[in-house]
Amino acid sequence: MKVLVLNCGSSSIKYKLFDMDHKEVIAQGGIEKIGLQGSFLKLTLPNGEKKVLEKDIPEHTVGVEFILDALTSPEYGAIKSLNEINAVGHRMVHGGEKFSESVLLTQEVLDAFTACNDLAPLHNPANLKGVNAISAILPNVPQIGVFDTAFHQTMPDYAYLYAIPYELYKKYGVRRYGFHGTSHRYVSQRVCEYLGVNPEGKKIITCHIGNGGSITAVKDGKSMDTSMGLTPLEGLMMGTRSGDIDAGAVTFIMEKENLTAAGVSDLLNKKSGVMGIFGVSSDMRELESAVAAGTNDMAILTEKMYFYRIKKYIGAYAAALGGVDIIVFTGGVGENQASCRSGACEGLEFMGVKLDLEKNKVRGEEAVISAEDSKVKVVVIPTDEELMIASDTMDILNKK
Amino acid sequence: MKVLVLNCGSSSIKYKLFDMDHKEVIAQGGIEKIGLQGSFLKLTLPNGEKKVLEKDIPEHTVGVEFILDALTSPEYGAIKSLNEINAVGHRMVHGGEKFSESVLLTQEVLDAFTACNDLAPLHNPANLKGVNAISAILPNVPQIGVFDTAFHQTMPDYAYLYAIPYELYKKYGVRRYGFHGTSHRYVSQRVCEYLGVNPEGKKIITCHIGNGGSITAVKDGKSMDTSMGLTPLEGLMMGTRSGDIDAGAVTFIMEKENLTAAGVSDLLNKKSGVMGIFGVSSDMRELESAVAAGTNDMAILTEKMYFYRIKKYIGAYAAALGGVDIIVFTGGVGENQASCRSGACEGLEFMGVKLDLEKNKVRGEEAVISAEDSKVKVVVIPTDEELMIASDTMDILNKK
Repeated sequence: MKVLVLNCGSSSIKYKLFDMDHKEVIAQGGIEKIGLQGSFLKLTLPNGEKKVLEKDIPEHTVGVEFILDALTSPEYGAIKSLNEINAVGHRMVHGGEKFSESVLLTQEVLDAFTACNDLAPLHNPANLKGVNAISAILPNVPQIGVFDTAFHQTMPDYAYLYAIPYELYKKYGVRRYGFHGTSHRYVSQRVCEYLGVNPEGKKIITCHIGNGGSITAVKDGKSMDTSMGLTPLEGLMMGTRSGDIDAGAVTFIMEKENLTAAGVSDLLNKKSGVMGIFGVSSDMRELESAVAAGTNDMAILTEKMYFYRIKKYIGAYAAALGGVDIIVFTGGVGENQASCRSGACEGLEFMGVKLDLEKNKVRGEEAVISAEDSKVKVVVIPTDEELMIASDTMDILNKK
Repeated sequence: MKVLVLNCGSSSIKYKLFDMDHKEVIAQGGIEKIGLQGSFLKLTLPNGEKKVLEKDIPEHTVGVEFILDALTSPEYGAIKSLNEINAVGHRMVHGGEKFSESVLLTQEVLDAFTACNDLAPLHNPANLKGVNAISAILPNVPQIGVFDTAFHQTMPDYAYLYAIPYELYKKYGVRRYGFHGTSHRYVSQRVCEYLGVNPEGKKIITCHIGNGGSITAVKDGKSMDTSMGLTPLEGLMMGTRSGDIDAGAVTFIMEKENLTAAGVSDLLNKKSGVMGIFGVSSDMRELESAVAAGTNDMAILTEKMYFYRIKKYIGAYAAALGGVDIIVFTGGVGENQASCRSGACEGLEFMGVKLDLEKNKVRGEEAVISAEDSKVKVVVIPTDEELMIASDTMDILNKK
């Protein structure tokens, strides 16, 4: 069985083709700059080599067609015919309160998803374009939607509501939804397999730290709270996003800088976070190099802020869960940056967290990084959202 | 030595006259509705009886004069002559980064304080009116300023900075300042006296829970982090304030409801919090009654949200401090509402917190409420900001 996983943004499409009999990726790549000058498809050949194919890609259907051509190319394709694709799994961003699990994409489902556009005006329409493109080209292939928000639908009301007039929740759905749900679900399940423990009864804090970052409190395998909110702006300090900030500071800045709601949103989403303080780059690798050089005070400050906020969320969620058994680090930074993990866990001995600094040197692979005598297991689990999407797709196909 | 403590708001003045030789309040009361119809002075007589004196009070100087008349009234005054007042201590709201401790109010100091008006446009000018009124009536009496923000000036930069473009901090002073500093300072010092321990080396979390609420992480007697921010809107769920909310939700609500920055600020400061969810009142006593009745789901939900957020901050600050030795509850709710304290501490056994539910029944008096075998001491300390202001005033007088 082969499953194509698509992640469609407003000007990009990422794809991975899985052979699910072997849980193996047999082709992958991505299109960028859809609708812009210089659009191209970049794919990874079986030998690991990258190949760039330039082409004018005015919209998503042309993009998807281009990907399917590449997949079946006699020269470097992974499959002989499109008939080999048994299903397509889509990463879909905002399922609102309508989707608490992955679903077969029927017209009814797509209508319900479209009704959530308001909550993710950039992402949801782009996701839909990908679905429509597949419908047009492969009308008989089942498509499955896997929502970024779905895993967090188990949060209790006292965790997901904001303390604002309740009618704003009823009227517009203003509440915490959370994102990165597929990643938090994957690593919270995978860590239990890896450690050979049952998710039931376990208190797990999953830290997805990448360019975007979020932390989730998981109990009995269910999301109980998460740091991103109505939008992906809330919570941790991120590459270019501010994370938590006094709402009074938001209106203060608007008045001082004469900004509209859209203007301050742009400032907080695109010019803040690591970029805002460090000033040079939003990339944690560049920040780490600058810190290592030892002379850049702003770099050192940025890193302290970044780690400190992760640490505070770990403490808050341990309190929310009534303790913690396992802490998982994942995402580009969480999987690869030892200093981030040790910085975030520093001083948490009082709650039973003790890292083994030697083990913590691991990069990008599954590993326990806590000391033998640490009450809390701290584990690195590289995330694999695409595999999760492909697995959900298979599960739904098998249930049909 | 007698010290008059004034707390001047835009339309109110509260006062307490202290006999500092006995650390005793010898007169107290307040003026309300300054500049409005129906202004009055309400004072508490020595026998505890309240007396209301109506009078047209167009502005603060008239109000201060009225208070001084009442203090020296042959009928119910506490002193014979204004000459008995040795000094006046003022509660002053926003000292920005300029004041890290209480100071004698010189013209230079007042100019520096006025420069912070931008950060507290309603409060600072009102505080100044009180100072000017005293200067006009009692030009030879020394006046001391005690700032709500001063105690928090010891926060490290990585705790007080927001992850926004650094130039917004340099240009406008956008950062976390924190409030209730005089209360957090008082109870963090008092709890050490009460327990007979040295503040040095101690990790204390002070929870000031009233109509407004904030939590502070204190180490070695110094504020290391606090939940209120640039403004008193950030942090806990309060009577009518939202506390923490996704900045993305702020701009979302503005766009949906067609609100200006001032409009959404009004919504989040005055119509949110307990009032926003409960819908009936912002008063925790009314909420508690509604919860006790057991049939109001929104009341139950409101209380869960309120307690949950306190609990998360306790966890976050324990992580920030690397553990916690003492948790203090103060403020109108923190001192009096047992269910709030137990709700906030529920599930914190993993970090050594264990309440004694019998001891926790205490209302409004100093008491240890944790169990004998609780690693963390949990203590109720009624706050006394006015006494702190009077004490600071004495200290400065004595140093002169």
